[in-house]
Amino acid sequence: MFRSRLEEAAGAVQAHLDATMAPLGDLPVVQAMRYASAGGKRLRAFLVLESARLHGVAAANAIWPAAAIEAIHAYSLVHDDLPCMDDDALRRGLPTVHVKWDETTAVLAGDALQSFGFECVSRAECHADPLVRAELTVSLARAAGAQGMVLGQALDIAAETATTPLTLAEITRLQAGKTGALIAWSAMAGAVMARAETAALHRYADKLGLAFQIADDILDVEGDAAKLGKAVGKDADAGKATFVSLLGLDGAKTRARELVEEACAALDPYGAEAATLREAARFVIARDS
Amino acid sequence: MFRSRLEEAAGAVQAHLDATMAPLGDLPVVQAMRYASAGGKRLRAFLVLESARLHGVAAANAIWPAAAIEAIHAYSLVHDDLPCMDDDALRRGLPTVHVKWDETTAVLAGDALQSFGFECVSRAECHADPLVRAELTVSLARAAGAQGMVLGQALDIAAETATTPLTLAEITRLQAGKTGALIAWSAMAGAVMARAETAALHRYADKLGLAFQIADDILDVEGDAAKLGKAVGKDADAGKATFVSLLGLDGAKTRARELVEEACAALDPYGAEAATLREAARFVIARDS
Repeated sequence: MFRSRLEEAAGAVQAHLDATMAPLGDLPVVQAMRYASAGGKRLRAFLVLESARLHGVAAANAIWPAAAIEAIHAYSLVHDDLPCMDDDALRRGLPTVHVKWDETTAVLAGDALQSFGFECVSRAECHADPLVRAELTVSLARAAGAQGMVLGQALDIAAETATTPLTLAEITRLQAGKTGALIAWSAMAGAVMARAETAALHRYADKLGLAFQIADDILDVEGDAAKLGKAVGKDADAGKATFVSLLGLDGAKTRARELVEEACAALDPYGAEAATLREAARFVIARDS
Repeated sequence: MFRSRLEEAAGAVQAHLDATMAPLGDLPVVQAMRYASAGGKRLRAFLVLESARLHGVAAANAIWPAAAIEAIHAYSLVHDDLPCMDDDALRRGLPTVHVKWDETTAVLAGDALQSFGFECVSRAECHADPLVRAELTVSLARAAGAQGMVLGQALDIAAETATTPLTLAEITRLQAGKTGALIAWSAMAGAVMARAETAALHRYADKLGLAFQIADDILDVEGDAAKLGKAVGKDADAGKATFVSLLGLDGAKTRARELVEEACAALDPYGAEAATLREAARFVIARDS
């Protein structure tokens, strides 16, 4: 069920991104926007669509925040790969934007993808109720900005030059911003669109986001670069504290499994309807890419 | 009247940015956000506040889109100054963000300023009617993105490697994106907030934006680097087509004057109430920085 729904979500969000970006023309910066926002697991889009389904929100509406979050995620990857950031040449098995084009195009394509994401959640087609659109927008801005994803990035960079390695509490805070904020926004989007309570999905997403990051750290140690489509072992080479360096490989795996069970339990109010989201949580720590 | 209102707008928007950014803490990336969004003429904020005043919109509401447009403008300057873009070391007479901090901080501070801008227009405090907030957001996203400012930037970069210099039509299109889109959004914001007709302000802003850019090109030839707080003569050194290279210095000045008169005439429906906006248009071509 989960695998087929994930594939369905990936197909739907790609078609929507293609259609919505079509009027933007074909300059290199727009080609780079399309390239950077293609592919990937589409976990964030899936969370949006699945939390919307759980609340009876029409897929024709939910596809807008799904496209928005993938655009914001794509912008963050393009900028994160820049030489002055992580300096990565490979992403999803393909050359990164600044390698395929140049740094200028990567900066601008990332910038325009961010604007595009905000356009997707504020357009009239996204939801009949403008209050919902405004709430999706303000929460997305906070999740992406200096109290969310950029905060996590900034803490990550500060850690690189710190004299002492990060503690578990510090790395948890860093990751809550860097990857957790967008994942939490995605999982709550359906409840926001239905004007329903977001607390259960928020708890689910917090656990899921942390499990996701621990799994990423495990993959950086145990993963296969070919399957991941990016370099591995970068954290250890850089001497960075990770969940694996702090908890050990077995400890990290145990913690990830606990978090997934806590994430699944948080969905109890939804009963059996939330089975696919529970499968998604289990997938997050079982994936090989 | 205009000078005092411009100063008043600058003070109000600075106070509002300070207050709204206070909860973001004091990491280097947030310091860089504050640094980059401080100072400047605040012409865009002034246009927002003045068009709001013209439509009877409360200043307590209008200050939000005024802060938003200054944040978006600041983000664009930080990224535009990067080594891979214009590679500028000086902005408003001070070191640019990547010189004072580093490129990483400049990329992230710009990214977070963009998110912050969208937060400002979608927050409940901005306007009681969420439809107005959604409309301000979607129009700001389009003005900033790949059909607006980023389009202009991309055309500007494409021109640098083009084999033939740009024509007047091409440079007009480039500038309509690069500087015109945000100026137009600013001038129309007051009408959007009042749910009034935007056509007259749109015409005014289109003429004003183009006059502004011609004045910039004239200042790059005739201006004083000390007063401008940035390097001059860069366009001629780079062999770039500008309004001055295409129209000649006198021709450019004549065209700028004509545009200002057309901008003022576009405000006829507002009568004497729009005197300050007319003064603003005249200021745009008379400024020395």
